[in-house]
Amino acid sequence: MAEIHIVNGPNLNLLGRRQPEIYGKQHFEAFFEELKERFAGHRLHYFQSNSEGALIDYLHKVGFGKVGIVLNAGAYTHTSIALADAVAAIAAPVVEVHISNVYARESFRHHSYLAPVCVGSIVGLGFAGYALAVQYLLDALQHEK
Amino acid sequence: MAEIHIVNGPNLNLLGRRQPEIYGKQHFEAFFEELKERFAGHRLHYFQSNSEGALIDYLHKVGFGKVGIVLNAGAYTHTSIALADAVAAIAAPVVEVHISNVYARESFRHHSYLAPVCVGSIVGLGFAGYALAVQYLLDALQHEK
Amino acid sequence: MAEIHIVNGPNLNLLGRRQPEIYGKQHFEAFFEELKERFAGHRLHYFQSNSEGALIDYLHKVGFGKVGIVLNAGAYTHTSIALADAVAAIAAPVVEVHISNVYARESFRHHSYLAPVCVGSIVGLGFAGYALAVQYLLDALQHEK
Amino acid sequence: MAEIHIVNGPNLNLLGRRQPEIYGKQHFEAFFEELKERFAGHRLHYFQSNSEGALIDYLHKVGFGKVGIVLNAGAYTHTSIALADAVAAIAAPVVEVHISNVYARESFRHHSYLAPVCVGSIVGLGFAGYALAVQYLLDALQHEK
Amino acid sequence: MAEIHIVNGPNLNLLGRRQPEIYGKQHFEAFFEELKERFAGHRLHYFQSNSEGALIDYLHKVGFGKVGIVLNAGAYTHTSIALADAVAAIAAPVVEVHISNVYARESFRHHSYLAPVCVGSIVGLGFAGYALAVQYLLDALQHEK
Amino acid sequence: MAEIHIVNGPNLNLLGRRQPEIYGKQHFEAFFEELKERFAGHRLHYFQSNSEGALIDYLHKVGFGKVGIVLNAGAYTHTSIALADAVAAIAAPVVEVHISNVYARESFRHHSYLAPVCVGSIVGLGFAGYALAVQYLLDALQHEK
Amino acid sequence: MAEIHIVNGPNLNLLGRRQPEIYGKQHFEAFFEELKERFAGHRLHYFQSNSEGALIDYLHKVGFGKVGIVLNAGAYTHTSIALADAVAAIAAPVVEVHISNVYARESFRHHSYLAPVCVGSIVGLGFAGYALAVQYLLDALQHEK
Amino acid sequence: MAEIHIVNGPNLNLLGRRQPEIYGKQHFEAFFEELKERFAGHRLHYFQSNSEGALIDYLHKVGFGKVGIVLNAGAYTHTSIALADAVAAIAAPVVEVHISNVYARESFRHHSYLAPVCVGSIVGLGFAGYALAVQYLLDALQHEK
Amino acid sequence: MAEIHIVNGPNLNLLGRRQPEIYGKQHFEAFFEELKERFAGHRLHYFQSNSEGALIDYLHKVGFGKVGIVLNAGAYTHTSIALADAVAAIAAPVVEVHISNVYARESFRHHSYLAPVCVGSIVGLGFAGYALAVQYLLDALQHEK
Amino acid sequence: MAEIHIVNGPNLNLLGRRQPEIYGKQHFEAFFEELKERFAGHRLHYFQSNSEGALIDYLHKVGFGKVGIVLNAGAYTHTSIALADAVAAIAAPVVEVHISNVYARESFRHHSYLAPVCVGSIVGLGFAGYALAVQYLLDALQHEK
Amino acid sequence: MAEIHIVNGPNLNLLGRRQPEIYGKQHFEAFFEELKERFAGHRLHYFQSNSEGALIDYLHKVGFGKVGIVLNAGAYTHTSIALADAVAAIAAPVVEVHISNVYARESFRHHSYLAPVCVGSIVGLGFAGYALAVQYLLDALQHEK
Amino acid sequence: MAEIHIVNGPNLNLLGRRQPEIYGKQHFEAFFEELKERFAGHRLHYFQSNSEGALIDYLHKVGFGKVGIVLNAGAYTHTSIALADAVAAIAAPVVEVHISNVYARESFRHHSYLAPVCVGSIVGLGFAGYALAVQYLLDALQHEK
Repeated sequence: MAEIHIVNGPNLNLLGRRQPEIYGKQHFEAFFEELKERFAGHRLHYFQSNSEGALIDYLHKVGFGKVGIVLNAGAYTHTSIALADAVAAIAAPVVEVHISNVYARESFRHHSYLAPVCVGSIVGLGFAGYALAVQYLLDALQHEK
Repeated sequence: MAEIHIVNGPNLNLLGRRQPEIYGKQHFEAFFEELKERFAGHRLHYFQSNSEGALIDYLHKVGFGKVGIVLNAGAYTHTSIALADAVAAIAAPVVEVHISNVYARESFRHHSYLAPVCVGSIVGLGFAGYALAVQYLLDALQHEK
Repeated sequence: MAEIHIVNGPNLNLLGRRQPEIYGKQHFEAFFEELKERFAGHRLHYFQSNSEGALIDYLHKVGFGKVGIVLNAGAYTHTSIALADAVAAIAAPVVEVHISNVYARESFRHHSYLAPVCVGSIVGLGFAGYALAVQYLLDALQHEK
Repeated sequence: MAEIHIVNGPNLNLLGRRQPEIYGKQHFEAFFEELKERFAGHRLHYFQSNSEGALIDYLHKVGFGKVGIVLNAGAYTHTSIALADAVAAIAAPVVEVHISNVYARESFRHHSYLAPVCVGSIVGLGFAGYALAVQYLLDALQHEK
Repeated sequence: MAEIHIVNGPNLNLLGRRQPEIYGKQHFEAFFEELKERFAGHRLHYFQSNSEGALIDYLHKVGFGKVGIVLNAGAYTHTSIALADAVAAIAAPVVEVHISNVYARESFRHHSYLAPVCVGSIVGLGFAGYALAVQYLLDALQHEK
Repeated sequence: MAEIHIVNGPNLNLLGRRQPEIYGKQHFEAFFEELKERFAGHRLHYFQSNSEGALIDYLHKVGFGKVGIVLNAGAYTHTSIALADAVAAIAAPVVEVHISNVYARESFRHHSYLAPVCVGSIVGLGFAGYALAVQYLLDALQHEK
Repeated sequence: MAEIHIVNGPNLNLLGRRQPEIYGKQHFEAFFEELKERFAGHRLHYFQSNSEGALIDYLHKVGFGKVGIVLNAGAYTHTSIALADAVAAIAAPVVEVHISNVYARESFRHHSYLAPVCVGSIVGLGFAGYALAVQYLLDALQHEK
Repeated sequence: MAEIHIVNGPNLNLLGRRQPEIYGKQHFEAFFEELKERFAGHRLHYFQSNSEGALIDYLHKVGFGKVGIVLNAGAYTHTSIALADAVAAIAAPVVEVHISNVYARESFRHHSYLAPVCVGSIVGLGFAGYALAVQYLLDALQHEK
Repeated sequence: MAEIHIVNGPNLNLLGRRQPEIYGKQHFEAFFEELKERFAGHRLHYFQSNSEGALIDYLHKVGFGKVGIVLNAGAYTHTSIALADAVAAIAAPVVEVHISNVYARESFRHHSYLAPVCVGSIVGLGFAGYALAVQYLLDALQHEK
Repeated sequence: MAEIHIVNGPNLNLLGRRQPEIYGKQHFEAFFEELKERFAGHRLHYFQSNSEGALIDYLHKVGFGKVGIVLNAGAYTHTSIALADAVAAIAAPVVEVHISNVYARESFRHHSYLAPVCVGSIVGLGFAGYALAVQYLLDALQHEK
Repeated sequence: MAEIHIVNGPNLNLLGRRQPEIYGKQHFEAFFEELKERFAGHRLHYFQSNSEGALIDYLHKVGFGKVGIVLNAGAYTHTSIALADAVAAIAAPVVEVHISNVYARESFRHHSYLAPVCVGSIVGLGFAGYALAVQYLLDALQHEK
Repeated sequence: MAEIHIVNGPNLNLLGRRQPEIYGKQHFEAFFEELKERFAGHRLHYFQSNSEGALIDYLHKVGFGKVGIVLNAGAYTHTSIALADAVAAIAAPVVEVHISNVYARESFRHHSYLAPVCVGSIVGLGFAGYALAVQYLLDALQHEK
């Protein structure tokens, strides 16, 4: 049994409500229930905040334990060196996820401060990206044991 | 009768106290009282925060109602994609306001992440810019009915 | 009673005829009649030219009097240092207006040579932007007295 | 039962032999056997070439059928508009994969011509990235039916 | 009687099949038959390849004869200095053609390595561009005699 | 019978007199007589001005009729957004022509504000480029009927 | 006796725990005790937050008194115009400190929005930098008296 | 006896009236009278226009004679390739003059399209620059004889 | 006795035929015979291709043996990350050679993707550069023994 | 007892005489006397030169001993890679000092070639910066023992 | 009677010997004799050095007297902030001179660190530029009296 | 018998002492003795200076004779236009040498002002690069005879 934290950044509390042509119609909370069922036998946690500082605080709090972290930092991906420093500072592996294909959108979404300090990134595969990231981390955590 | 939210970003709590040669000597609270008098018969609200997250939270809270929003995001104008995403995500029309003529100042103040997702911008007209923005939004909201 | 000059630059003679999805369907001449009614008791003048030189000549001619100027320089906004120098050289306050939200269009429309030498800018609020600019200038001219 | 094509670009024939500190010690052929076992019941194909033209030819040949494509274009990712045009021209969904975290390497590896025309990207998760991409495509192809 | 070679680069074998809203519905082979009829009395040849090297080989093979060359290098236009060197190295005049208006598309299509070493370019006029280029070259070759 | 306007921009009144190693020795007026003979049965008009504003005025005057326009805007090609806006605003198709190969000259001649809003461009083919453009437009106007 | 505020930004709560090869092994709290001893007879305060807004709030709260401020804004140094505006708005002198030599690290750490609005900067001298900054401010505050 | 044309561009009709801290208090017409006295025995002409096209027309008209030209193109210096093309096209030597030190002003005044096609430039020496340029041209014209 | 492979890229098959003012009049084949004589007692091989993929294939084939490689990749030098990756992936030392002084030519020839992964470069010394590179590699291979 | 060398670069011989609003009114020689008193018991040396080569020579001469170096390279800070190479080559720790806040001045003063190869930098604290640097180095040299 | 110093920078000792197609055939020493004759009654001095430091030393030595300085810093114009700082630091007016038209040469010669701190510049007028500069300075020094 | 001058720039006097992992352990003086033996029968000279001006002086002194020059300008390679001008001004052929592979180091070492004006460059081949350069120059000087 392993522990995974899914961390969503700014405006992702609006999923299902915001620009459904980009982000789909499902609320993240509903998807998270499915995810927990799918990975039953593991502990999955969900945290969302619109505050850069609160996201950093959360990473500090959970990131020194034996956990995996799935991080969709939303727009902070492109502007927050502080968040990237937090990812680099903690011990847990972090996989970056983006729901939409950010490379097919405005050019300021093409650069990620987080990508170089995460293990890797899954971009553009919708909510499925979270599931793939969880699966990757569970495998990776098991191999480390 | 319509509802308008005036939202001020970082350091704008210091208006009247901070660099009066740029921002003038009036406290925003005093100006806001004048504004409410001038637009008596409408509901005007005022919110200020130095926190990017708190500004996003506020836009989420009020931005799906039938309201107009006047937003002076201060320095976040130039750095916050997250705030711009919030403006794009909500339903209410947002007019960007800047008290000083940002184009006559440092070059890093010339770019606005908010401008492309707002209805429009009023820049450099001092506190009067807020009044003009309120007036525009009241007219626009009436035409929509 | 105050005097205001509205100055429109290249291609703005086509308003109502050109790309109505961007600029609307109203001819500027019709709007100008409304504007004169609305600000009855003040002298409003209208000048349009497709020629950079003619626009500069006009600013020189009227810009040393006790007047306010509303300037939508169209595409010259982005390319004409000469026009900006004219604005800086004259005595009258100039407010820059753009009908469409230039920040939501091609990147070469994001930079204005005029903005730093004008009092301020009103962008993206349609024809209403002219009315707001006139109102601002009337107030400003009155306070100077 | 669905059909998936895994397409590897230049120098990826050296996997297991080339810079193992970056790419690991496993030969891709061995990994591909594992993959076929894991997704038994589906048809998996593997193609590798060091030639840009041959990769384009292959995409043209298989890309109009009802298949999914996993594409690791290696260094052509960063230089080949022709390959990106091929991805855009064909009908099949393409998922971009990179074994190493390209964002933690030289800056010329940070830009992908392919990313905007693929469905999405999986980067930095080692050989596991191919498996996750296959799984995503199988799910996606099933949903389309 | 003169000899003209029409050379098409990557993905242009898909004409008629690929993004018809950009490239139209006609197959190039059908158009080439029309072209041969139109310029009956002259020898027209057609070559297409997705391989940069094969295109260079072809230019070397035919380009030292008394011929004219019409070259649509597709995406290699924007990335291949090698192809441009081949054009500069051979003796025959080369006219660059693009079916779509590349200047109205992504910015990476605005630059051509070939343009400075070709005689000239015809861009955005659809298949007609090939015919105009052939006509130009026939006239030019006749004047040289 | 169709109507075509050939519009030449700044310094093109000097053709035949100015830098003949770049622009050739023929006066444009003489060439225009040849052109009228060649396309006898159609109405061809010629306009030249060194003034950006006069060129815009002319496009406005003729550009809403059922005509084709051949535009060599000379140096305004590289600097005039106003002229490009005029081309975009009118109804008639415009083909851009340049006598010399601008891509083989100074880098500031490589960018055209007009290219994206014209139907297409013919560059570097000397005076013949005008003839090819006329021919293209006559064909295009006929097909529209 | 003078009053000094030491303000640390994001991730600096992890000092002693985070990347000790860059930041050393000492916890800041322990160092702060040493510092208070060293400058006994003066009032030293310490504040740390991961939140940009909270840092701005703190500067507003203490920055109008007769104090000196030592500010290590961590990653916000490179991204926060809002924090720089706060420094410029307050009355107290601010000295910028960085523990590591940011100029020997990633290029995005080479630019500081804070530097131009601080009195000066001390970079790369480890924890000793804080002590030197305190000493400088004590001297400067004494001279002002 | 030689013939010299002094050509002034946009806003230079305001000399003596416009920003005297930059351009001085003397009207150019008065200075020109002094100049004619100083170079009595030579024919000096003066032309000023705010129109780019009119300046080009003037250069075309006088520039093929045996004359020297002193050109202060004002802001067109920095934006007009058309004017530079006119200078390159004519036969007469042209010396560029600027009254103020443009290199000590805004960065967009640091680049001159005219400089590379003029004989040389005299910058920042006030009205004296015109006199030095006239003197240079008179010497140069005499040597050519 | 040692083994050296000389590998020439695109358009270098035209040496002696192509732009002799840049590349000289000697055919490479003739020079290669001289070279073999000069270094008699060693095995020298020569390979040329216009295809990026074929060059990579060749490097893979010979580059894991105990050999030295002299590589003139022609224009691929400036565009091919794939070729650079091949050089980095193989075991043999590679010396980059250019016949002409690329730094005295177009700016796009100033950057080499190969240079950082080769042992070193010899540029601008004509065919002699190949001989010096062979000599260097023979010395280096001998020292390794 | 330790040995410290203070090295000043170009124009710093004018301190007290040059732009006192930026650099203060004190001559460095007078300040150096104070410094020696303050750090009595240690050997302090002072060297100034306007020559890049002489500064490099001096660093070579003293920099391999057990000394600390305080280096204010003046304008060479921004242009001299040679000086930076000298700092990197020697054994002694070097602290960079600037009297004025270079980040509040022209942008070409914001970059330092020296900063990445020095231990650290003290900027904007006036002459006090030298004293703090000496103090730092004395502490550092003592700890090394 | 006034005193003028002419200061020439690197490689200008070769005038008459070096690239005569750019710099002419006259040795500067011969020209300087002519100059002294021409301005008989004034004290003219000449200094040349290839050393940046020696040029700075010279400016320091003479620049605080009541003199005028004509400075052709050669290539140091484009690279030496130290020399520009020296010009800014001294009291004497400095006029920048270049013999050739630097704006018609390589782009790295288009920028001058000296221009903004000199009174003005005379460029491209050959040796005559020195004479004009001397004349300007003599007039200016006389007016100051 | 021919004459060759080897000229080394800043910090190269430290070879053998400075960063041996980059530059090796041999002192250049020792290597120079070997070189003289190897090319016995020719006159080899060695000059080193840390001063840009002294290097220029030396090139002027020897560069108009019938000699060859091997120049390793160290860091001045990347910053000295003055040195490049000296190389261009003299008559002797100059071959640029760098001991380390500068293209595998910091990006500011990738650009050489000298490369375009030298005959060619040898980079990254250690001390052997000097020997190869000498050999090339001896051959070249012999052919000229």
